[in-house]
Formats: sequence, structure tokens, C-alpha cells
Amino acid sequence: MEYQFSKLIQGIQPSAADRMLEQMNNPQLLSLAGGNPSPETFPIDEIRRASGLLLETDPIHVLQYSVTEGYAPLRKAAWEYFNSRGQHFQSEDELIITSGSQQVPDLAAKCFLEYGDIVIVEDPSYYLTLDTFRSHGVCLVGIRMEEDGMDIQELENAIHRYQPKMLYTIPNFHNPTGITTSSEKRKKIYDICTRNNVLILEDNPYGDIYFGDYPLPLIKSFDTEGSVILAQSLSKIIAPGLRVSTCIANKKIIQKLVLAKRCADVHTSTWGQYICEQILVNIDMDEHINNICAYYKEKCNIMRNGIEQNFPDDIKLIYPKGGMFMWVTLPERFSMPDLVEKALRQNVAVVPGNIFFVNQNAPCQSIRMNYSTPSAEDISNAIFTIGKILSKD
Amino acid sequence: MEYQFSKLIQGIQPSAADRMLEQMNNPQLLSLAGGNPSPETFPIDEIRRASGLLLETDPIHVLQYSVTEGYAPLRKAAWEYFNSRGQHFQSEDELIITSGSQQVPDLAAKCFLEYGDIVIVEDPSYYLTLDTFRSHGVCLVGIRMEEDGMDIQELENAIHRYQPKMLYTIPNFHNPTGITTSSEKRKKIYDICTRNNVLILEDNPYGDIYFGDYPLPLIKSFDTEGSVILAQSLSKIIAPGLRVSTCIANKKIIQKLVLAKRCADVHTSTWGQYICEQILVNIDMDEHINNICAYYKEKCNIMRNGIEQNFPDDIKLIYPKGGMFMWVTLPERFSMPDLVEKALRQNVAVVPGNIFFVNQNAPCQSIRMNYSTPSAEDISNAIFTIGKILSKD
Repeated sequence: MEYQFSKLIQGIQPSAADRMLEQMNNPQLLSLAGGNPSPETFPIDEIRRASGLLLETDPIHVLQYSVTEGYAPLRKAAWEYFNSRGQHFQSEDELIITSGSQQVPDLAAKCFLEYGDIVIVEDPSYYLTLDTFRSHGVCLVGIRMEEDGMDIQELENAIHRYQPKMLYTIPNFHNPTGITTSSEKRKKIYDICTRNNVLILEDNPYGDIYFGDYPLPLIKSFDTEGSVILAQSLSKIIAPGLRVSTCIANKKIIQKLVLAKRCADVHTSTWGQYICEQILVNIDMDEHINNICAYYKEKCNIMRNGIEQNFPDDIKLIYPKGGMFMWVTLPERFSMPDLVEKALRQNVAVVPGNIFFVNQNAPCQSIRMNYSTPSAEDISNAIFTIGKILSKD
Repeated sequence: MEYQFSKLIQGIQPSAADRMLEQMNNPQLLSLAGGNPSPETFPIDEIRRASGLLLETDPIHVLQYSVTEGYAPLRKAAWEYFNSRGQHFQSEDELIITSGSQQVPDLAAKCFLEYGDIVIVEDPSYYLTLDTFRSHGVCLVGIRMEEDGMDIQELENAIHRYQPKMLYTIPNFHNPTGITTSSEKRKKIYDICTRNNVLILEDNPYGDIYFGDYPLPLIKSFDTEGSVILAQSLSKIIAPGLRVSTCIANKKIIQKLVLAKRCADVHTSTWGQYICEQILVNIDMDEHINNICAYYKEKCNIMRNGIEQNFPDDIKLIYPKGGMFMWVTLPERFSMPDLVEKALRQNVAVVPGNIFFVNQNAPCQSIRMNYSTPSAEDISNAIFTIGKILSKD
């Protein structure tokens, strides 16, 4: 049989993500290419205890079909947790549970976007979400990132020129750049988009991983008009294998997202939802978050110190105030693809920056390095190896 | 903000499914309207034991991100389990894990269907999968069901007239009718579709719940051409809250489904996959399946006997040879919607048959009744109540 694949799926290339996953199978590799939270931050004892208790006292509910919008006590616990961390939503907002935060752009695209519609994204941005949008046949328009977030003039121009339906942003500790969008820009993005009837998809997987001041208010916090869909994963503060995330939006939007989710996977893993509820309710989340932040801050500092000691002075480095990633841009005398390949030959993996751009084929001098997954020692050794390669060039 | 929802999501109506879920919240209700497997069939002790051991010995892998195609040992265990139950696949076939079998039509539609394409479905068919197809903007063409499966002449005519891209079928113990497609028709469906380049999506959630002879070979078993995508849920033989299903197809198809799944939810719950692997490997599945079959057979007989004793002689009943549903068609002197409403007023819920048809608004005399979820006593009482309503009309 000759397969006729859809235009949508033909727009998705396996290459970049697959190559990275293949690398992961080399046990000798020092990988700065991943993006996994460190298992040191998983509340393993509490999950074990909660799971034992749930499967002892309420196994039928934990193993049975559940409702599409999510397990009601978890929806309540997550709402209260976000409130306790200074996030305040609108009275018209509702929270549902999704199967990882990757499901949020997939459902939002299904509910709002037609083939050929325009979506504005930060350029660079998280490549897998870009692929999710591409898989709906929408056109991506990238906005250049400055050290405090999107270039607002370019954003305004793009909105007037392309009349997009949606904007996708990661304002806290952006993946891949680590950039924090400033308060002023958050407000401007909200105002410009709302004025022009552009929905905002705000992705906040890293907001609870901060190294200094408490994170800035989310764009969602300004959202009196109901124009912001907020995806807040629990993967980085509980555990990603549970595949439990939250989505908060105006209830008219939520109704449609629930219809789309029912068609996609009926509901999210029941056990995973019960576990997250137990964790949010039973453990001291402030203390847990403080521990996570301290743990990642130390690793971030190790990477930063390694870069300062081993990399040429004229590289450009954005110091992340949180999250999991460091974005290094090489001066023109280096070839980024050469560096990535030489490093890999010495068993060090980093992600070539081009895969995060709307145009993956444009020249790119940047690499993304992750400090959440590797050990402190591996970070030091990997940075030292990359530094040696750069010093020889 | 004025929301402009997509044409796709506007095609999905919440009504039918939502009304049923609302009914479930009435504690006095005797519901034959559900479709949940009975918790009596869940291997609860084994799941509890496996979970305890996994979270004790390997918590990091169980809680960490995993790969999109699924946990390799589960993929192997599921493949071997299906083989042990007499299913044999092609050497070009591969098996991946999906988040429930509902995800399979969603991913298959993404990979193969364009807006406006035609999909052939049994008429009636499982309403949620019809909604999944509708959410991709495809047009459904329904084929009348006979007591041994689709009307083959109508199928041939429809294929020549509409040139569909895909056909969706539930050959074993069909939802909602309980019909088993005969061997002859399975072969004919395969031949006609393959000759006309129509992909077959074969859904087999109920194949392991049979009351007499071993189930007939799947359409997939003829699939030398690679034209069949098989969805085989583990929800009905392990537990549905895990949200773990399998999908088996030619590896060229699987590659694309994996790309689509990565964009949809990255991967299926890691814990759920580890649990399923442990269950498939460690328990005597033949004995487990025999117990499940015996348990549902008894309930099916209770419903059947109740119908024979309490319903008018001229109703039409298809005797299911497996699965979870019984489909009753009333003579013309009754109004099906009236019956459903009267029953509901007496706290008995059944599903009005019209929601399973491509055209939900056409006149319909059938109801679907489920015997897997309610207790034996509730089945008897509910059937008695419906019988009394029918005898008064």
C-alpha cells in the first residue's frame, strides 16, 4: 500500500529531537542536551507513601475512568497552590488538568486555529511546541528576543501586518534562552494582544524555579479580558512521568478545551492526578520549592563559573534568573555546528540553537546547555571540554 | 474579548456525552448508560504489589520523562501477550503505546486526513470516536450494520462513490450494538479497502471479553499490505484509569504516529506503562482473562434473562457474544425518546441509540444498555423497571 500522509504531518521533521534522544543512549555521554528535571527534586518518599495509601484505601477510584476536566480535588488543590504562590486569577477563570503541558497548545490550536492561521512566537522558542503548532498547519511568525523579552516594536508590526490569532510566550526563564520577560513587556504584550483580539498562550513550566527574587506576576494576572490561556506544568515541581499539568483560562475557553481533550485522550491518568493532589495538599510546598530552587541555583552557578573560567571572554551569555537552561552565543569566528559536532565526538552533548528558531536553517551561533539533569561534576567536565575546543579554534 | 472558535471545535457538541455524565452524579440512579469495566475485574492486588515494588526499587525511572513510542519492555510484553492470544502480526509491524485507545484515531487522523476527507464508519458506532474524527474536520459516511457486520454492498458502493481515505471498524463485540463481524466480512472489508487504497482503523477494546468461542481472527491478521492500524486497549483487561493502550501498524505508519504523539502529549504516563508491563509479565493472563469472561458472561445472561422475561416479545435484541453492551430496538408503536425519559424519571438510565449514528437527528428506535458496570441486582431491577414502562405503553 502506498501511504498518503497528510500535509500536516509532512510538516513535522523528526530530525532534531530524535538526534538528541539517540545521543541519550550513549552511557559515556556527558549530556547538557536534555531538559529533564533532576530526580533529586522528586518527592519520592511522599509519592511512595501517597501511592501505597491510595491503592490500599481507594483502589477502585484510582484505577477507574475519570472525567475529562480532571479530578475535582486536584483542580481545587492546584488552584489553591497557585494562589498561595501569589497568583490570582479572575472569577471567570477555571482550571482543568491536561496530560502534560504539551497538550495545552495542541488543544488550544484545535479550538482556535484554522489551517493557514498565523501564530506569533518568541524566536527562538521551545521547539516541541513549535512543532505542535506546525502539526495544526498554522504559520509561525517569530519575534526577536531581547534580554528582557520580545522586541515590542517588532511584535506590534507583526500583529498589524499578519493579524495573528494567537501568541505563544514563556515569560519566566524562557526555554531555550533563560530570558525573563520584564514587567513592562508583560503588560505591553497583554495590552497589544488584547487590543488586537490576539489570544495569548502563556506557558509557565519553570516559574517555581527561581534563583533570586520571587518571579514577576504572570501575564495571566492582568487578564481582565479573558484573553490568556495559561499552561502550568506540575512536571518540574512534582515529577514529569506523571504527565499532569494544569491549564487555566476563561470558562468559555475551558468548555471548548474540554471537548477537544475528550476527543484526544478522554482524561489524564487517574493515579497521576490523585498523587499530585496528595502531594500538593500534604507536603510543605513552600519548603519543597525552596529546596528545588536552592538545588538548581547551585548547579546553575557551577555552569556559570565553568563558562567564565573556560570559555572565551567574547561569548555572549544570558544569566538565567531561574529555570533550567543557559544560552551561549559564540562570536562570528566560531562555527556553532562545528563546535556541537566536535563536542559530541568528545562525548559532550549540547543542543544546536538553530532547532529553536522558526527558520531552523538560518545561520545560528547559539547553543543551549542544561544544568538540571547532569551532576555537578558532569557539568564541570562538560564545560571544561567545550572550553578546550573553543580555545583551540 | 470575543472568542472566535475554530470550525473544527464548533463541529463538536457537548450534549449527549455530557448529559450522560451528569446523570452519573445521581446516587439513586440505576445506570445502564455507562461503559466502564467492572472494578471486580481489576487486578488490584497485583497492581498494588507492582507499584510498591517499582516505587521502592526504581522510583526515578518510574517518575521521569520517557520516550514517545513507549516503554520498551511494555512494548515487548504487549506484543508477546497478543501473540500468546493467537494474534500474529507482520514482520513490518511495530507496536507503540498510546494514552488510551482514544488517542489512536486522533493521531491517525492527524497523520492521514485532510480537512474535508471522507471516513467510512459503521452506523451506529462509538460516538466518541466519531467526535474525534469530526474534530479533524473530516466527513463521516455511515454503513448500515447487519447482524454479522457492515452491509458489504453498501460499503462497496460508498467506497466507489466517496473515495474515502479511511474506514473505522470495531469487529469484536461492537459498541454500541454488540455485533460480531463475521470472518467472511472481515476478509471482504480487508480486500475491498486494500484494493481501493483505504486505510483500516481496527479498534479492538473488547476482543478479550468473549462468552463462547475464542474470538475470530482480527482484520489485522490478513494485513500483508500494511493497510490496517490496530488499536488494542489495555483498559478493559487491566484498568482504564492507567490510560494505557497499544497501537500496532506498519512501521512507516508508526513513525508518523510517533511524530504526532510527540506533538500531542510527549509520552504516556510512565508509571502506568511500568504497571502494565509488570501485570502482563507476572500474572497468569489466561486465567485472568477467563475470570473476566466468566464474570461478564454472568451479567450478560442476567440482562438477557431480564429482557426475555420483562420486555415485549416483538422487541429486537442482538445477543452479544462478548463485550459490554446490549442493543435493543423497539417496535414502531413505542417512542424511544419517551422510553428513555420515562426510565430516567424512575431513576434508570440507558443511552438513546441516536447518539451513535452519523446523523444523530434521524429517527431511532434503539437503546444501548451496559451490563459491565452495574451490579447483578441493579441490572435486574433496571430491566424490570424498563419492562414495566414498556408494558404500560
